[in-house]
Amino acid sequence: MKNIGVKQNFVDSRAKVTGKAQYLDDIRFPDALVGKILRSPHPHARILSIDTSTAEALPGVRAVITSKDCPRNKFGMEIADVDMLAIDKVRYVGDEIAAVAADSEEIAEDAIDLIKVEYELLPVLDDPQEAMKRDSFLVHDEKKSNIAKEYHIARGDVDSDFADCDYVFEGEFSTHRVSGLYLEPFGAAAQWGPDGRLTVWTGIQSIFQARNEIAKALGIDPTMISLRSPFIGGAFGAKIWIRNFHPIVAILAKITGKLVKVILSREEEQLTTRPRVAPKMWLKLGMMKDGTMVAKQAKIVADNGPYSWAAPKILLNMAMRTDCLYRFKSSKTDAYLVYTNLIPTSGFRGYGNSQMHFALESFIDMCSRKIGLDPVDVRLKNCVHKGDTTLHKWKIKSCGLSECITKAREEISKNRSPKEDDGGRIKRGIGIACMNHVSGNRGGDKFDGSSAMVRIHEDGNVMVFSGEADMGQGSRTVFAQIAAETLGVEISSITVMPLDTDTSPFCLGTYSSRVTTVGGKAVFLACEKVKTQILELAAEMVFRHAHTLFLEDSTIRCYYDPTVALTLKKVANYAIRSKVGIPLTSYITYDPPTEGADENFFGDYSSAYTYAAQAVEVEVDTYTGKVKVLRVIAVHDVGKIVNQLGVNGQITGGVAQGIGWCLYENMQFDKGIPVNTGLHGYTLMTIKDIPTIEGFAVESCDPIGPYGAKGIGEPTLIPTAPAIANAIEDACGVRVTNLPITPEKLYWSLKKVQKKAEGEHVETQRTA
Amino acid sequence: MKNIGVKQNFVDSRAKVTGKAQYLDDIRFPDALVGKILRSPHPHARILSIDTSTAEALPGVRAVITSKDCPRNKFGMEIADVDMLAIDKVRYVGDEIAAVAADSEEIAEDAIDLIKVEYELLPVLDDPQEAMKRDSFLVHDEKKSNIAKEYHIARGDVDSDFADCDYVFEGEFSTHRVSGLYLEPFGAAAQWGPDGRLTVWTGIQSIFQARNEIAKALGIDPTMISLRSPFIGGAFGAKIWIRNFHPIVAILAKITGKLVKVILSREEEQLTTRPRVAPKMWLKLGMMKDGTMVAKQAKIVADNGPYSWAAPKILLNMAMRTDCLYRFKSSKTDAYLVYTNLIPTSGFRGYGNSQMHFALESFIDMCSRKIGLDPVDVRLKNCVHKGDTTLHKWKIKSCGLSECITKAREEISKNRSPKEDDGGRIKRGIGIACMNHVSGNRGGDKFDGSSAMVRIHEDGNVMVFSGEADMGQGSRTVFAQIAAETLGVEISSITVMPLDTDTSPFCLGTYSSRVTTVGGKAVFLACEKVKTQILELAAEMVFRHAHTLFLEDSTIRCYYDPTVALTLKKVANYAIRSKVGIPLTSYITYDPPTEGADENFFGDYSSAYTYAAQAVEVEVDTYTGKVKVLRVIAVHDVGKIVNQLGVNGQITGGVAQGIGWCLYENMQFDKGIPVNTGLHGYTLMTIKDIPTIEGFAVESCDPIGPYGAKGIGEPTLIPTAPAIANAIEDACGVRVTNLPITPEKLYWSLKKVQKKAEGEHVETQRTA
Repeated sequence: MKNIGVKQNFVDSRAKVTGKAQYLDDIRFPDALVGKILRSPHPHARILSIDTSTAEALPGVRAVITSKDCPRNKFGMEIADVDMLAIDKVRYVGDEIAAVAADSEEIAEDAIDLIKVEYELLPVLDDPQEAMKRDSFLVHDEKKSNIAKEYHIARGDVDSDFADCDYVFEGEFSTHRVSGLYLEPFGAAAQWGPDGRLTVWTGIQSIFQARNEIAKALGIDPTMISLRSPFIGGAFGAKIWIRNFHPIVAILAKITGKLVKVILSREEEQLTTRPRVAPKMWLKLGMMKDGTMVAKQAKIVADNGPYSWAAPKILLNMAMRTDCLYRFKSSKTDAYLVYTNLIPTSGFRGYGNSQMHFALESFIDMCSRKIGLDPVDVRLKNCVHKGDTTLHKWKIKSCGLSECITKAREEISKNRSPKEDDGGRIKRGIGIACMNHVSGNRGGDKFDGSSAMVRIHEDGNVMVFSGEADMGQGSRTVFAQIAAETLGVEISSITVMPLDTDTSPFCLGTYSSRVTTVGGKAVFLACEKVKTQILELAAEMVFRHAHTLFLEDSTIRCYYDPTVALTLKKVANYAIRSKVGIPLTSYITYDPPTEGADENFFGDYSSAYTYAAQAVEVEVDTYTGKVKVLRVIAVHDVGKIVNQLGVNGQITGGVAQGIGWCLYENMQFDKGIPVNTGLHGYTLMTIKDIPTIEGFAVESCDPIGPYGAKGIGEPTLIPTAPAIANAIEDACGVRVTNLPITPEKLYWSLKKVQKKAEGEHVETQRTA
Repeated sequence: MKNIGVKQNFVDSRAKVTGKAQYLDDIRFPDALVGKILRSPHPHARILSIDTSTAEALPGVRAVITSKDCPRNKFGMEIADVDMLAIDKVRYVGDEIAAVAADSEEIAEDAIDLIKVEYELLPVLDDPQEAMKRDSFLVHDEKKSNIAKEYHIARGDVDSDFADCDYVFEGEFSTHRVSGLYLEPFGAAAQWGPDGRLTVWTGIQSIFQARNEIAKALGIDPTMISLRSPFIGGAFGAKIWIRNFHPIVAILAKITGKLVKVILSREEEQLTTRPRVAPKMWLKLGMMKDGTMVAKQAKIVADNGPYSWAAPKILLNMAMRTDCLYRFKSSKTDAYLVYTNLIPTSGFRGYGNSQMHFALESFIDMCSRKIGLDPVDVRLKNCVHKGDTTLHKWKIKSCGLSECITKAREEISKNRSPKEDDGGRIKRGIGIACMNHVSGNRGGDKFDGSSAMVRIHEDGNVMVFSGEADMGQGSRTVFAQIAAETLGVEISSITVMPLDTDTSPFCLGTYSSRVTTVGGKAVFLACEKVKTQILELAAEMVFRHAHTLFLEDSTIRCYYDPTVALTLKKVANYAIRSKVGIPLTSYITYDPPTEGADENFFGDYSSAYTYAAQAVEVEVDTYTGKVKVLRVIAVHDVGKIVNQLGVNGQITGGVAQGIGWCLYENMQFDKGIPVNTGLHGYTLMTIKDIPTIEGFAVESCDPIGPYGAKGIGEPTLIPTAPAIANAIEDACGVRVTNLPITPEKLYWSLKKVQKKAEGEHVETQRTA
């Protein structure tokens, strides 16, 4: 294949590196007003009064709004618990209270400072386990408890299986809030047209879901909104859903009659960025002497923050997904999502799956060592294979997991550094972790598909319309490759069109690592359909049967007659001006052949399942507790590589973000008040900390994905953290079960081990 | 029907009357440069040198271009004889020589003044009959003669038929250049994107043909251009094709790397507006004693100006179309289009048909009177009827011509003013003229169709995509009505989307009075198709057969079960998120069931043919020659009224423009130099001159047009001028055969009649 599996420069690289690609803030809107938002400084308080009069009197201020100026339609993804501006209470530091539209950013900021709010401070709920107690103070007065959502999922009989096991282990794990920290801060511009329709410009992962949610908040019909996405400077899941500023900017535009633009500052980004859901996870694992994993039980208490967004879905992933990584006989999970007054959490690369993977993949190493088995052998013994149907009824249509594990072990074993150095101060170790993930998710929605429209123009150029967003990961390039390959044309003749809810085909958006598999398949099918039109038309023109013709290098040829050579341009030109009644345009909807889950979450709900094993080598400075990742071997079952450069980019980026999550980043709070928003306080890994990352692809050739491809976006981050934790134990004998693994934490753990070695009884391998 | 045949306010009236509708000049482009064009002051000259250095040195000037900076791809519609900037010669006053892009309009104008051009003056060709002679100086050096195009069309044997006739008459007629004079001057803005694609904003009648023509001039692929049309403030045919400024503004944008906007001044508009083609027409008509018209012969010499644009097609219409108004046995036409150095001519409401109608409909009155017959009876005796196939093989599928004539006569006869007044100074008379026209034209192109896409959104709102332009005549409203009626939804739920070659379905554009008939039919069929999808989906939801369901008031109901009441919203919502694989979107191409003409122009080439009769009452001030139109009765066979308000508007506007053409407007030249550009010199009729115009519709219910509708745009102007000329003769006995009928001309003609009455022999009725 000429266009699939190659190293394809991104179709928009030139525009991006020359600075010509327009991100939201690059678009010059004439006479635009600047919107700013007043946010709560308190994690939990009742609003006694808001005085906007001084702000309103400031010259250059065009509107000051509070909740009294807004429709009070609660919105939110699964649970509608969000008001666009606070009505009676604020529930976290950053909660929106009022907003201003002004002639300049300076005036808008001054106006924000002039709004006076009187608060009555309320108890701060910053511990989910405390908050879920019956007698806890409530985050939402009108709710019965602080439990936003709970799941109780059981397959088989874990109790009976545990009784039959040779070993039963218990462990406790936790992960923390980290911020998406994409380069481009989130924002939106809005303007009402003369026909009463609202145009919103915002770089967002799902244009249609965003449009619908803004409409819900405003109480208008979704198609009264035209939502257009400029280039997106990264998203990682935090830009799937709208933020409060989306309906706010629409209200400001309505009141002022002007275009209003809101772009978040980096501090606002971190306050409202919807960081990764932070859970505590208790695991129980039943194993046989030979390493067979039989039963798995989990309890999860996850910190939702005050507004729920995608966290319910994320909790569900956390509760279930790893059950399908190995051939468990039974599993049982009780999971709770709890309202607190910390920053609301939501989707971030991995979408819950990364959290439970940290727990399980750490725990498998811990348990295997306990019974004297090689953890990698245990994984190989238990891992799922193509053809399996897992206990949640996932049908594994393609699976390269065992190949990934084998390859990761093989590669990490090459060129090892000496185990110890610097007189024993530096200790080195390796660790491996696996992962499974989805490529699309027929979860809460009946529909998990995508649509695509392909148009062939008279000059032979091809336009691909899809509503799926390229947030920087390269999906426009993948779509162009699929179209070029399927149609048999040069990639330079393909234009993947910009996103606009008025003209883009309906789709769900970029999440669940679904864009290549589902969106790309839609593009593939639309190309196949239009190719049929092309060949049928060409058949008329050259007096051959359509099934004897094929398209190659933008030319229609005949299998048996080399004299036939008709350019696509000629056929397209004939089509568009002939009487055959076919514009060379195909418009299709594709929905993967999955059944979705029943009310008990039982069912095959992804088009394809992806697998990976990552192996890392670390060194631990036992004097300081500092961990340095030396090498990462990332072996991913991608089904089939579409763009080698894209896969490499995803692996490098995902692994780096995984290392950051594991070792560097942490959103910290002091009595509910964030203490390290802004890049000055938040420890982000820099380029000098990035290790050698070697990516390998296993091509399991999925039967459903386009050309066999599966998703790669999220999987790259998921196994990195547990692999590091496993490598750290391998290096220095210390197991850390709560992320992040900071030097301080490791230092004190090393101290404990030292003390144990000196005679004290300290259990480090078992945390239960 | 709820939405067809009603008085429907235009869907964009509110936006227009509140000033919120954005025409090109209303769009604020940040950092836009202003483009201006240097035009020739000479009708014919060789360019010896162009010095742009002083202009380039002026601060604020960003680019000065001449032909050396431009690709030299000749463009033009049928004959590619246009350069975007003059290369060696200028050929009319207004011809483009150089262009400037500058920071402001003032600077651009100053820069234009600073460009120095040396000319060598050449002989001016301002008379087509002189210019077509073999030894004439050439307008285009590389051509063999000044004849741009000629047609020789014969049906039957006119010579033999003339020999059999009781009477054979000959006459000579001419019509003149008039300007379209829409409210919004033409213009364009252009900007090149980071992906190398060019975006052009211009309010134009055919977005796709304009895109293709700009691409041809620039030498790039058409789909490298995204052409977007804002609101259009009138066009009347003069905005069908691009002007030179379209590729010029693209070159200025390319060189400066900025957005450049060119808006013509009113004077530039009139210089380059492509006025009506000005022909001389010699007619020969063979009749029997009983008024039967047997044979018609014509010779036409038409003034093309130096560049041909649509004039070849217009000449063809002039040559043929009236042959199909009556049941002629034979016809023969020799037609010549001649290059001159006057302003280039092109399309204007009527597209050639109006010119020959003036000649023929005047001549029928003249001849009928000669043989003592009532001209109206002669028309009724000869006019075509439904079911006829005319001598050019037009198949008349619907025809209300005889009804139109009868109604016009009946209405004009009511409430007549006294024949004479003011002691005989004021004389009054009535006249009638007929007309036939097309609704679409499968002329030079194999394709005469249109495409449409209809999307039903989850909220039940409907988007209609069509590429056909609304230039103010109300086609967006007509499309919304057709969609509302066909789907069974409220018109308020329909949005007819703006035009953009990237997203609009392919079409030919707004001309040949085709938008309602062809574009509207495409919308109708797309709605029918999506309705089938809706009903099939609804059938699944309510467990009924689709053929027992219908859509009314946005609700799906069942013919036999009144309990079925499913909202369209629910179905659309189900569709978009169900697994049925159908987005509620239909995309269709419609090409009317006409065959087009053969190389001899023989064939049925319009979807539907329209007919009208207009009757006017005039009064002539015999002392001054001034004509006042008192009343116009306009009876039009529109097939079926879609929007009563739209039909009324077209009739009022078209008749007014027809009166203007006949009595007021005239582009005058002195040795090739226009002497009355600008509204100060050009006599435009004002509101106080407008008579009572009474419109009547005959509904012949065309079998092909949507709901039976046919076109109404151009027909309204066509019969007005000959009806006035006929009424003038009826009033005062004077026949004027060359337009315009100015007071001066009529005054001198009246003088001649007086002299004749006083004994001199002056022939006024016969001009041959």
